[in-house]
Amino acid sequence: MFLSFEGIDGCGKSTQARLLAETLRSEGRDTVLTREPGGSEGAEEIRRLLVEGAGERWSAETECLLFTAARRDHLERTIRPALAAGKTVITDRFADSTRVYQGAARGELRAMVDRLHDLMIAVEPDRTFVIDIDPATALARGNARGGKEDRFESLGLGFQQNLAAGFRALAQEYPDRVRLIDGSGSVEDVAARVRAAA
Amino acid sequence: MFLSFEGIDGCGKSTQARLLAETLRSEGRDTVLTREPGGSEGAEEIRRLLVEGAGERWSAETECLLFTAARRDHLERTIRPALAAGKTVITDRFADSTRVYQGAARGELRAMVDRLHDLMIAVEPDRTFVIDIDPATALARGNARGGKEDRFESLGLGFQQNLAAGFRALAQEYPDRVRLIDGSGSVEDVAARVRAAA
Ligand SMILES: Nc1ncnc2c1ncn2[C@@H]1O[C@H](COP(=O)(O)OP(=O)(O)OP(=O)(O)O)[C@@H](O)[C@H]1O
Ligand SMILES: Nc1ncnc2c1ncn2[C@@H]1O[C@H](COP(=O)(O)OP(=O)(O)OP(=O)(O)O)[C@@H](O)[C@H]1O
Ligand SMILES: [Mg+2]
Ligand SMILES: [Mg+2]
Repeated sequence: MFLSFEGIDGCGKSTQARLLAETLRSEGRDTVLTREPGGSEGAEEIRRLLVEGAGERWSAETECLLFTAARRDHLERTIRPALAAGKTVITDRFADSTRVYQGAARGELRAMVDRLHDLMIAVEPDRTFVIDIDPATALARGNARGGKEDRFESLGLGFQQNLAAGFRALAQEYPDRVRLIDGSGSVEDVAARVRAAA
Repeated sequence: MFLSFEGIDGCGKSTQARLLAETLRSEGRDTVLTREPGGSEGAEEIRRLLVEGAGERWSAETECLLFTAARRDHLERTIRPALAAGKTVITDRFADSTRVYQGAARGELRAMVDRLHDLMIAVEPDRTFVIDIDPATALARGNARGGKEDRFESLGLGFQQNLAAGFRALAQEYPDRVRLIDGSGSVEDVAARVRAAA
């Protein structure tokens, strides 16, 4: 099984991915918890180019190529080997993030994103949890967290609202794969909703 | 005018690109001398991921995505603005290097390289000089130079021989654009051949 968590910055992906991994492990399933951008040695190095620095550091096209390079490395060196060994893989973000972030930045880029995905990645998770939350709440959570990985948060609330709409649209576009999870309430409330949708 | 120099490691590209830039400037042409991977702030950061480290650090596919990301940034931030301002651009390597290096590593990748180029770059130089030289001579020159940017040189003489054949084949594939330059003899001998073919 290949599972992904998606949603805007600060919605609770990392928290919920970790909790689901703990649940599955407690049920005896060998589970790999990973994340994007990153999740392999090379991809983590590419990650630094993507999440640090100014918002306009890269054009949307260059950014998309860097995300795809990191994803390809992650897929080859972490995801595929784990699935081949019969493990469950939970990734904190995958290709849906690229679809939504680039599409939110400039809508006409979605076609380019899709062609790049088909050419270089061509894999989807078996199940994707989109954690749906009010962008103002998520932004407050993210800012509280601190750190220097703030390049996307720095793009502001209006951008995050576009993203939230983009993630919601994914549930319509991929109804068999994507489950929209209400991200409000406590960490345990949300975790219960994830388990119910798994 | 957009000009590129291509050829195997140590064949004399950087030397000849610099000499041609000097010649054109002495004729009063406003000339930008640039290089790949790199040539813009972001692309130079991607360069470090590509030219340092072990030969097998990236798969050919991931490597190709990273080169294309660097090229896109270089094109947007250095090449296009200079050409739009009426300048001549001379680049030390461009897309032909990706065609040849990935093709030499695994021949069936050439189709992927072409699709990625068409999707994300879609620009060719007006004139390309391929400096053709015996790989053993070039490797000796490159090793003499030292430094830590040795990831491709470390792949060995057999690999360089594949590359040399790949660069020669480009002259057949793109007869209008590519000029094969005999790279033997002194720096001035080669420079005279470049000027004659410009
Ligand atoms: N249900 C919740 N209620 C309150 N706080 C939460 C909840 N879920 C997560 N948080 C807190 O909000 C912050 C962001 O959560 P988390 O890091 O899981 O989000 P994320 O989606 O992974 O963010 P990013 O996209 O920035 O990586 C963290 O400080 C986390 O502890
Ligand atoms: N015609 C020549 N005769 C002798 N030495 C040369 C000649 N041309 C260049 N060199 C020397 O060979 C070395 C490699 O040349 P240069 O750096 O121009 O090659 P390059 O193609 O740019 O290499 P790389 O692909 O590694 O960047 C340098 O030390 C340079 O001074
Ligand atoms: Mg997170
Ligand atoms: Mg050089």
